[in-house]
Amino acid sequence: MPAGSPGVSYELFYWPGIPGRGELVRLAFEDAGQPYADVARMPRSQGGGVAAMTKLMEAPGAELEPFAPPFLRVRERTRSAERELLVAQTANILFFLGPRLGLCPRDEASRLRAHQLQLTVADLFAEVHDVHHPIAVSLYYEDQKREAKRRAKHLVGERLPKFLGYFERVLEKNGGRHAVGKRVSYVDLSLFQVIEGLHYAFPRTMARLARELPLLLALRNRVAERPRLAAYLASPRRLAFNEQGIFRHYPELDPARPA
Amino acid sequence: MPAGSPGVSYELFYWPGIPGRGELVRLAFEDAGQPYADVARMPRSQGGGVAAMTKLMEAPGAELEPFAPPFLRVRERTRSAERELLVAQTANILFFLGPRLGLCPRDEASRLRAHQLQLTVADLFAEVHDVHHPIAVSLYYEDQKREAKRRAKHLVGERLPKFLGYFERVLEKNGGRHAVGKRVSYVDLSLFQVIEGLHYAFPRTMARLARELPLLLALRNRVAERPRLAAYLASPRRLAFNEQGIFRHYPELDPARPA
Repeated sequence: MPAGSPGVSYELFYWPGIPGRGELVRLAFEDAGQPYADVARMPRSQGGGVAAMTKLMEAPGAELEPFAPPFLRVRERTRSAERELLVAQTANILFFLGPRLGLCPRDEASRLRAHQLQLTVADLFAEVHDVHHPIAVSLYYEDQKREAKRRAKHLVGERLPKFLGYFERVLEKNGGRHAVGKRVSYVDLSLFQVIEGLHYAFPRTMARLARELPLLLALRNRVAERPRLAAYLASPRRLAFNEQGIFRHYPELDPARPA
Repeated sequence: MPAGSPGVSYELFYWPGIPGRGELVRLAFEDAGQPYADVARMPRSQGGGVAAMTKLMEAPGAELEPFAPPFLRVRERTRSAERELLVAQTANILFFLGPRLGLCPRDEASRLRAHQLQLTVADLFAEVHDVHHPIAVSLYYEDQKREAKRRAKHLVGERLPKFLGYFERVLEKNGGRHAVGKRVSYVDLSLFQVIEGLHYAFPRTMARLARELPLLLALRNRVAERPRLAAYLASPRRLAFNEQGIFRHYPELDPARPA
């Protein structure tokens, strides 16, 4: 594994077993070759597991507690001091990590642009989640399936075309290859995950939309071929999409024709 | 009106007629005494109106376009240059404005904490919106009322207690009076709006929860009494909650007893 920054350690806390929002942070670490601990997926004997994560969420100390995973614990030593930071909210974590990992330009305007796009990715994630949970996260999918089918028509017919059309235009305006700036940023990595997730969950819809999304689909391919990411994607560290996650493949939510 | 920073102008773009997400930005400007233009609410003859807003969203130039209102146009002159920024996503706008308006400590750790909380406020706004639109934003409430009632039980019985309990603990851990740091921040102003909105939309639920939220309710009162905000709240600039906005009062979604 490539060497990371000396004097700093990163621990990611996220539900094991699903790619979910945590994957957007993993993609950044993996692409940058920055070592990190994926705590909830580590064995208890190494201080890992879900209990290690929920313990931090109950936040016994004065620390600001996370509302939900993912969150990141950063410990760093400088010449004069040591500090520990707990950063939560996916887009906030990536805003923090971006320039540190070389995955975002450092100037204020670019950082705000990247973050604005990342928050729109977050909005898309929330809508994709809610399509299978339109009534409550505390209910099973089976108990809100009728409402899910009704919501899905609007997701695939209105919302996904709107979100994806937006990101396609963003790429086009920025020269076609990157969402922000002139190099790959964490936003590009997240857009890769969006496209992967949507292909998994809504293959029919994505087949229909493909012609309108040439730049996004080409971006997906370029990201997948980046050497460190290609190695990661082929490794057991990469979690497959599944029906406990955000992107779920329920064929009844992916109609053969739009409404 | 108090004088703002020289050499900088702020224009807010948001749907007229509802407080919505734009109100979180207005509260920051108003509390800081920073003049701003509320463009979509200005007359056409002064370059205002909704058309002036949608024109910018169609973004003819190379500018990163906003996915949705609110967004902010900032023009500033320094000794050597002039720059124009278009910043979208409510939490991103407040992240940008916070230190400039004296509404957030300037150190990185505090800015990340404030932003993390603001993103959780954004999540709460989204859930409160979706309770009356559980199927689609493109449908009327009346066409998704049955699903809304089902979702509302979970919102008022599970989600609001979870979100508000979280913010109550955040205040408690930080000494009781502020969400972040030792002075009022934009997060406190947003929490004021959360409490106001929830009192409007879910008065029965909020009456039930009041005993568990002493710090949040006291914060609401202190914010309302800040001189500039008190003047703003009594002015015609302050928009009332209504049934086109995010916080809507539909008595059928605010049950007398939790499920």
